[in-house]
Amino acid sequence: MSVDLYHAEPAANSLKVLLAFKEKGFEFTSHLVRLNKFEQHEPWFLKINPNGQVPALVHDGNVITESTVINEYVDEVFEGPPLKPDTALGRAHMRIWTKFVDEYFCPALSFLGWHRIIKGFVKDLSPEEFEAYVARIPLKEQQDKWRESAKQVWPQEQLDDWTRKCEVSIQRMEKQLAETEWLAGPTFSLADISCFAMAFGMDKMYPEFVNEKACPHVMDWHARMRARPGTNAAFEMPDHLKGATTGGARARG
Amino acid sequence: MSVDLYHAEPAANSLKVLLAFKEKGFEFTSHLVRLNKFEQHEPWFLKINPNGQVPALVHDGNVITESTVINEYVDEVFEGPPLKPDTALGRAHMRIWTKFVDEYFCPALSFLGWHRIIKGFVKDLSPEEFEAYVARIPLKEQQDKWRESAKQVWPQEQLDDWTRKCEVSIQRMEKQLAETEWLAGPTFSLADISCFAMAFGMDKMYPEFVNEKACPHVMDWHARMRARPGTNAAFEMPDHLKGATTGGARARG
Repeated sequence: MSVDLYHAEPAANSLKVLLAFKEKGFEFTSHLVRLNKFEQHEPWFLKINPNGQVPALVHDGNVITESTVINEYVDEVFEGPPLKPDTALGRAHMRIWTKFVDEYFCPALSFLGWHRIIKGFVKDLSPEEFEAYVARIPLKEQQDKWRESAKQVWPQEQLDDWTRKCEVSIQRMEKQLAETEWLAGPTFSLADISCFAMAFGMDKMYPEFVNEKACPHVMDWHARMRARPGTNAAFEMPDHLKGATTGGARARG
Repeated sequence: MSVDLYHAEPAANSLKVLLAFKEKGFEFTSHLVRLNKFEQHEPWFLKINPNGQVPALVHDGNVITESTVINEYVDEVFEGPPLKPDTALGRAHMRIWTKFVDEYFCPALSFLGWHRIIKGFVKDLSPEEFEAYVARIPLKEQQDKWRESAKQVWPQEQLDDWTRKCEVSIQRMEKQLAETEWLAGPTFSLADISCFAMAFGMDKMYPEFVNEKACPHVMDWHARMRARPGTNAAFEMPDHLKGATTGGARARG
């Protein structure tokens, strides 16, 4: 049996799958795809995921993409503690959260993050070199996002609206966590994993609305999430954006 | 046991759940929510779904929202033929499709449709009356969509891009259906239901890219979907937008 995970550093959607993998605790081979080297658009990776996006799981030769789908799959097929509630109603609540993250929270955070970090990615490239990289991107929407963010043309109003969506997301979590211990109810689940993959560190990035006064239950949940062995194991994965990589494209997970 | 489904006419996300309900074949109470009367934003409905969106399922007092989540739930808890593939890999393929519909195909089609039909919805309202209706909408994104579409301010470039996304969606389906009988593989599933809820009738609306030459496999699949008893039963549900409603807010499903 072979289990190969292609992922970037432990943040956002790559963190989402790393958290699930580490919570389950099974063995897998980690393949670090360097976003700052645009490796996700190289021909070798497009053979795995033609959309040119990480993470991607290859299980016994079968490719599975989309972090939320990967996590549902992983919970179904691998041994380890269950990551879904044990009732159909609980699973529905969980999926409302994972869907909300994919359609609302993650896109807002992703545009903001990309707007911030792309400057560092492209600063040593000529316009022609940058365009050559963009031309390799399979999805038009991703091409548009790269070009617009590299030009830093998004109006402040748009940046403010994405920030507003992050605050709405945190407040939605706060409301739920005031009622239940975990986001989908009494048990830890993929809902917590999806939200934490986005929300971790937001107390540092957005202290104006992620703090003890504005969202005490989110802060408590964040601390409980940080204390989980699975979370710590996920954060121990190579992080080339912080210079903490082991240097190789492979690391044993 | 009580099963109450709040839904609009059989199209888009309401059709998505009606197809699943009728394929399973269980008894439920249908509650028609009239979008052209803005009933989804009335206080009685906001008590059911605070987001003010249909469809919503109330099963033994528990509310479940989001059509894709409802369909997964329904397949888990009600008797009837399974609507998910019988392998974890098949279910992953299915979920990649249902997610694609929710994040890409449906939003593009929804903006185009809304741009077209809102004129009829608002033509008898004064600007003040319209704004009063918009002010009741719980989600800011929905408020923005209503105001912008009512003003018909979307540039042609934006309308063209949503149309392009519809064509990309159809071509993605064509590629898959050239390889497998159904979208998630050899068996009919929620993937087909999600895509059909969006794609039905597109041969009439967009004949320039939905036709026998451009997408023969989609056309064949569309005909197979139309012939299913479950599909016919779903389309027999009241359709107040076509004047085919039975006149009451309730109809036995």
